[in-house]
Order: sequence, then C-alpha cells, then structure tokens
Amino acid sequence: MKNIKIVVEYDGTRYHGWQRQRGHRSIQQTLEEKIKLITREEVTVIGSGRTDSGVHAFNQVANFQMTARIREENLLRALNGVLPDDIVIKRVEEMAKSFHARFSVKSKKYVYHIWNNTTNTAINRYYCWHVRKELNLECMKKAACFIKGTHDFKAFCGTGSKVKNYTRTILDVELDRDDRGKLLITITADGFLRHMVRNIVGTLVEVGKGKITPEDLKVILDSRDRRKAGMTAPAHGLFLAEVHY
Amino acid sequence: MKNIKIVVEYDGTRYHGWQRQRGHRSIQQTLEEKIKLITREEVTVIGSGRTDSGVHAFNQVANFQMTARIREENLLRALNGVLPDDIVIKRVEEMAKSFHARFSVKSKKYVYHIWNNTTNTAINRYYCWHVRKELNLECMKKAACFIKGTHDFKAFCGTGSKVKNYTRTILDVELDRDDRGKLLITITADGFLRHMVRNIVGTLVEVGKGKITPEDLKVILDSRDRRKAGMTAPAHGLFLAEVHY
Repeated sequence: MKNIKIVVEYDGTRYHGWQRQRGHRSIQQTLEEKIKLITREEVTVIGSGRTDSGVHAFNQVANFQMTARIREENLLRALNGVLPDDIVIKRVEEMAKSFHARFSVKSKKYVYHIWNNTTNTAINRYYCWHVRKELNLECMKKAACFIKGTHDFKAFCGTGSKVKNYTRTILDVELDRDDRGKLLITITADGFLRHMVRNIVGTLVEVGKGKITPEDLKVILDSRDRRKAGMTAPAHGLFLAEVHY
Repeated sequence: MKNIKIVVEYDGTRYHGWQRQRGHRSIQQTLEEKIKLITREEVTVIGSGRTDSGVHAFNQVANFQMTARIREENLLRALNGVLPDDIVIKRVEEMAKSFHARFSVKSKKYVYHIWNNTTNTAINRYYCWHVRKELNLECMKKAACFIKGTHDFKAFCGTGSKVKNYTRTILDVELDRDDRGKLLITITADGFLRHMVRNIVGTLVEVGKGKITPEDLKVILDSRDRRKAGMTAPAHGLFLAEVHY
C-alpha cells in the first residue's frame, strides 16, 4: 500500500468546493472518480482542508492510499489526461505512512485578490473581487498588524462552524498593490476557521474605505462577536496558495 | 457631433474576434449594439485594428461619432452596465475631429503568454499557450534580436492577407519568465501583419526548444517565405496590451 501525496491546482468556479457532497460537483469527488478510472481502486482523497464553493487553489495538497503499481510520473500524466482542464495535478509523490494531508499541516498561506478600480476587469473577472472605491492601503496595513500573532478569532468565524477552539496564530499578513489596481492580501496561519480569510478581508476593506478605523479592527477582534466584523468577501477572489508541512 | 474615443478590455474567449461579421458574435458588433441601446444612435465603432478570434485585449482603442448629449463618465457607466462582463470600457474621452482609432496609430504593443511547464495551469488555461518542453530563454532572446528594426516580415505574415507592403518596424521585443513558469513575449511595432505576432512566437518557441538555432530565425526572416517559419501560436495566449497615438 502506497501513501500518495498530490499537489493540485484548481479553478473553483464550476465546483461546490473541495468537499464531496451529495448532488453537487466537488473537487474531491472529481479527483476520486478520476483516480478510480486510472487505478481501478476506490480511494478517499484527504485534502489539507476544505475550500468553499468557488474558491481556487494554486497548490492544494491531498493524499490517498493506493495498492496499484503505477509509477508516480505515470500516475501524474494519466490523471491529467482524464481530469477536466480546470483541475491540474502538479506533483505526485510517495510519502511515508505517517503523512496525512490534513493532520500533518503546519501552516497554510491564502491569497485574496481584489480588483480596486472604478471599472471591473474583463480578463480577471472570475479571480478578483471588484471593489470600486479607492482603498487606503496604508490604513489597511495598519489594521492588518492587529491580527498578527495568536488570537481568538471568533469575530471572524463564519456561522455554522462547529469548532470549540477559536484560537489561531497568524504568522504573516502582507498587502501589495500592483500598478494596474490589483490588490493582494496574503495571510499565513497555523490554521483557519470557516470563512476566516474572507471575513478578515471584508473587514480590511471596510478599513480601506474609511468606514472604520484601523484600531476598530482590534476592537472587533477583541469583541469575539461576528456581527461586529465586516461582510464576508466573495469566494471567487480567494486562492489557497501553499500548504506547509 | 462628438468624436468619442473608448479604451476597452476584453476576454476574447467567447468572440469571433474584433471585426463585425455575419453569423458570428464579435467585439465590434457587441459594442455597437450596446452603444445603440444607450445613445439610440446607429454608430460604427472603429478599432485600432482587428484582433483575431480568441485574442484578448487589455487596452484596445476605438472611436465613434455620436450626437447624443451624454457626459463621458455617464456614458462609461451606462455602457459597462449593459455590456457582458467579458467586455469592459476602461475610459471614454472626447477627441478632436481628426482623431481616428486606426489611421492615427503610431505603434502597438502585444504581449504573448506562454505557460512553460510540464503540467498545464488550471487558473490561466484560457490565457496562456501551454508549452511542455522547457524553453531556452537565452536562445530565444538571441533570436528575438534579429527581428528588431525595420524588415520585410512576409515570412511571418499569415496567408490570406491582402497587404502589398510587408515592411514593418519592430521597436522593441522583450522576453521575461516569472518564477511559476509563465513566459511573456512583448512586441512593440509601428504595425503588424496578419498573424505576425503569433507566427513570430511560434518560431521563437522552435528556437527555445532547440529545433532551430537563433541564427535560423534571421535566415527565415530574409527568406520572406512563410513555409519556413514555425507554427502559428494559438490565439488564446495573445493580448493587445497598448495602442500608442
């Protein structure tokens, strides 16, 4: 039995997220079906974590157990040959038995793409949140400092989450704007709550618009009250960029 | 009568190119229909030049004559409100009578996107040509030097073109690769022949693969023989980036 790790890029536009669910097309289900087609084995593909409906990934990591004797490079080629073109396997690697795509995660990096311009973008419309009003990047950077480090992030956790412990450590937050108006918010943490990145981004955008001050973000964080935070930024601007083990 | 200049970004995926033609959806036709919806005037939208079926534009420039008394910023907003989301008007500006989007062009810049990696990209699949074999960028840069300047580009002109004069001046060629494997070829010239960028790119890729030498590109150019040049690179990697007046 081989423990196979895969690194997957996907365009989440057409999918109801990572997680297999009845009646909806998901990334996990598509991978499991195509792996079965190649290996003739029913496998369970374990992702590093779920991504919501519409969220993209540059480097999602997953693993599954396989008895089929197929060399890694052949499995990669065969899978990419049968997968739809919005899912690409970038790497296939045999791992030690102990490797688990979810439990072994040390940290993850997400990038959120905002198109900050009075007009939207035609080319990147499926991959950016369009925010018309000019955002004050300096204020957003100031606000972002308050979420660095270890905090209780309940104020930024989506309703319906079943976790008991809301404490996470944000290792890094970066904000960059390119000359065409694309603003990237990169957040690295040891773990993420449901909708956490999208709720933080929604609140940072409120700061950028001047609706709340950078210091208000600290007040919101300390309140542990979801109703005080900003809107949930739309899924299609979010990319799972890296998973670190 | 106002002479209105528009700057347009479009995703060419769903269109049969810029030029209006019977039985196919084009960018020009879509713009003319939507302008009529707003101004109630039948206008002819003159582009800086055609783009082929499937080619994209970051900043296509066009102009049309309008008698309707609508302020530029309102026209911009109204048009973007009715256009499909793969066409965006980025600027609207009233110009002098003498401005003509095609005849007044001084130069244009095209960018060609290649995804140079053994595996394709899911996210950028509609906007890059996937070339599996690792390309030798240094050889391609050497070859690109031979096309700079004023030459007869008949060897790189697509069949079916009706021009008599194949002489064009390439003002600049740049090749850059980012760390994820995206290779950009940027060509600025005072004018372009049919499929000229795509034929040059197809030939540069032959150089990058080591199938021909950089010096062969000069031999091909001098031959003025289309059959000697490489394949026409696919349309979906090509972007009209800038038009200079």
